[in-house]
Amino acid sequence: MIQIAVMGYGVVGSGVVEVITSHDESIASRAKEKINIKYILDIRDFPGSPFADKFTKNFEDIIGDDEVKVVVEVMGGINPAYDFVKRCLESGKSVVTSNKELVAKKGAELLNIAKGNNVNFLFEASVGGGIPIIRPMSQCLAANDVIEIAGILNGTTNFILTKMIDEQMPFDDALKMAQELGYAERNPKADVEGDDACRKICILASLAYGKHIYPEYVNTKGITDISLDDVLYAEAWGGVVKLIGQVKKLDNGKVDITVEPMFIERGSQIANVNDVFNGILVRGDSTGDVVFYGKGAGKLPTASAVVADVIDCVKHLSARKYLYWSDGTEADVEPYCETVFSVYVRASADDTEEAIEKVKGCFADVKLLTRNGAPQNEFAFTTGNMKSSDIENAVKAIGENGINVLSKIRISDL
Amino acid sequence: MIQIAVMGYGVVGSGVVEVITSHDESIASRAKEKINIKYILDIRDFPGSPFADKFTKNFEDIIGDDEVKVVVEVMGGINPAYDFVKRCLESGKSVVTSNKELVAKKGAELLNIAKGNNVNFLFEASVGGGIPIIRPMSQCLAANDVIEIAGILNGTTNFILTKMIDEQMPFDDALKMAQELGYAERNPKADVEGDDACRKICILASLAYGKHIYPEYVNTKGITDISLDDVLYAEAWGGVVKLIGQVKKLDNGKVDITVEPMFIERGSQIANVNDVFNGILVRGDSTGDVVFYGKGAGKLPTASAVVADVIDCVKHLSARKYLYWSDGTEADVEPYCETVFSVYVRASADDTEEAIEKVKGCFADVKLLTRNGAPQNEFAFTTGNMKSSDIENAVKAIGENGINVLSKIRISDL
Repeated sequence: MIQIAVMGYGVVGSGVVEVITSHDESIASRAKEKINIKYILDIRDFPGSPFADKFTKNFEDIIGDDEVKVVVEVMGGINPAYDFVKRCLESGKSVVTSNKELVAKKGAELLNIAKGNNVNFLFEASVGGGIPIIRPMSQCLAANDVIEIAGILNGTTNFILTKMIDEQMPFDDALKMAQELGYAERNPKADVEGDDACRKICILASLAYGKHIYPEYVNTKGITDISLDDVLYAEAWGGVVKLIGQVKKLDNGKVDITVEPMFIERGSQIANVNDVFNGILVRGDSTGDVVFYGKGAGKLPTASAVVADVIDCVKHLSARKYLYWSDGTEADVEPYCETVFSVYVRASADDTEEAIEKVKGCFADVKLLTRNGAPQNEFAFTTGNMKSSDIENAVKAIGENGINVLSKIRISDL
Repeated sequence: MIQIAVMGYGVVGSGVVEVITSHDESIASRAKEKINIKYILDIRDFPGSPFADKFTKNFEDIIGDDEVKVVVEVMGGINPAYDFVKRCLESGKSVVTSNKELVAKKGAELLNIAKGNNVNFLFEASVGGGIPIIRPMSQCLAANDVIEIAGILNGTTNFILTKMIDEQMPFDDALKMAQELGYAERNPKADVEGDDACRKICILASLAYGKHIYPEYVNTKGITDISLDDVLYAEAWGGVVKLIGQVKKLDNGKVDITVEPMFIERGSQIANVNDVFNGILVRGDSTGDVVFYGKGAGKLPTASAVVADVIDCVKHLSARKYLYWSDGTEADVEPYCETVFSVYVRASADDTEEAIEKVKGCFADVKLLTRNGAPQNEFAFTTGNMKSSDIENAVKAIGENGINVLSKIRISDL
């Protein structure tokens, strides 16, 4: 019998307790040990809970109990999760977390502490909810060089974009609907501004390339500026707008990493990932493209990924899993201004014919797009591949020529 | 340094040798040991090969060498692969295979021998080529009850169907093209008649439900009877025809398992899996639907899955992985005649109006389908859910009433 503790009894935490108690036999057969939840840490009271005898408000109960071998951290946020996790690892307890913010910001340090104490620090649930991705990437793709990872990593924004694309629902209405359905929080900033997707692509990038990629070095743009007009132009172009997290290894050893809305061709496997679903593409030199698809959030999917990690910890109490990356710096990341891609631009001008001539002088390989119902002074186009800084200069140049750039969205090479 | 042997130097075998030699550093860092190929077994000569010193035609060289800890079997077929694998496991060598026929026919026995000798028998590459599926299913989904598995498991037939759907290419032409491109063998029977897909769904079913499901107990139908007319009716219905392997656990403890062409709604994740790609959906009670997508065959994808298993064997030389199922019997499989589903039927009759009236008396919830260019005496319809045996009886009954059933395809509930 292995004793564990669960820190945080919110959506995911209560899901973890539910999955462990409802699948106890199959879990015991897989883990080769029975798993018992000895403590549940939460500052709130849960009167009448069937787990009343397990609740504690004092972290010291857990850290001081040598019987507890595995601790599940599902509180979220950095404080106090970071201190608690660190102390658990330092005192020889393995830790399983679903906390993407913690892993994205403190992963290298915590992995190093885990290594030094010969315990495991696992975080399958931090990316893709119930979709297995951390483990397949670190194990099954061991015989591959990962060329690129790209995907839809945030279900909330994907739900909003799906409503905008399929039902021409304006952004604000779609966000409100997502909040009413419980897909978006009352403060939706971390989702709609791309921070959540950024944390996840940072975790995948760190795992794939062995160096910690910190979110603050990653170009991150959300979907708040996407309009229905852009959605219509994307359709005219032959695709859809999706919020994509993407990372590639460059020949210079740096990673080209970004989180931003992109035009995705309709034929791409990623273009068909809709609603709250996530889809993650891993391009290996041997496997080619492998795509993982499923619900990226939610109580039970996330909880089941946490519990799979707990089982793995129990099976490997004396042997560490291979899951490690070293610390990284800003120098590991290619400056965004140096990266190369093509863009879609929507603009307005008094004389669009004249404006289009000017545009052709500033951007590479300009191709015009049209849509039904466009105002007379609006026009839109796509470009060929250009350096990001050259795109910015071109935007500035046409601005000085009386052209008003209304939106600019990267075109994916997926 | 761990010594291994590779049995079979065909497409996959040469890929395994290539992946191991070209990724030796990253493999050594993951396996925590260098991996050296000591023998390559093949009855053919490979003059001028850079691996000339490793070739042997004598299996006894491998079995008699105690230094060899892991043996890769990529010969295919049952003989002599079965004997060789059995003897390797009995003599304490772990075995990695990509041989789906071997695993589907002899898996329970070989897993049992592996267990008795405390060695591993791994076969990630036997299903889905380079797509990680066996490992995620056995590990990440450990905290789930698997409700259903369904997918496109054979790339050759999916290529042929894609050509039929997208380009209205007749079956024979599409098969010929697949052969020219190297996707189909000169004798394409195992692919086009569904045997290959059947072996794979049997492996996944055995893994998910813990009992060996043998291919001979599984209803297996290939795509040789699918016509362009059916493809057009599928489109009119709102979907596509795909060759699907599917298994569900029934309340009576048996599994409902089948391999056959099915109508799949266009919105389904599986409907958009095209060309030689595979897509496998795993429906868990906690995770919901998770889909794995990628190239299901090919030299390097398959080889990389084999090598990932080799790395896992090396890391677990003294500790077995959890991968096991017990033997099974025909009684574990629900007889196909008892299973319930709805179908599409295409038929012809001299008087179609009269025929449709008769059809409505024999089938449940008949809905007519129309297509452009249908001959005047042709009609088609879908039914509601019916027991398979009742469908057969209804087909017989309308046949006795002068209605000629031209085709009958199951409608998927995916």
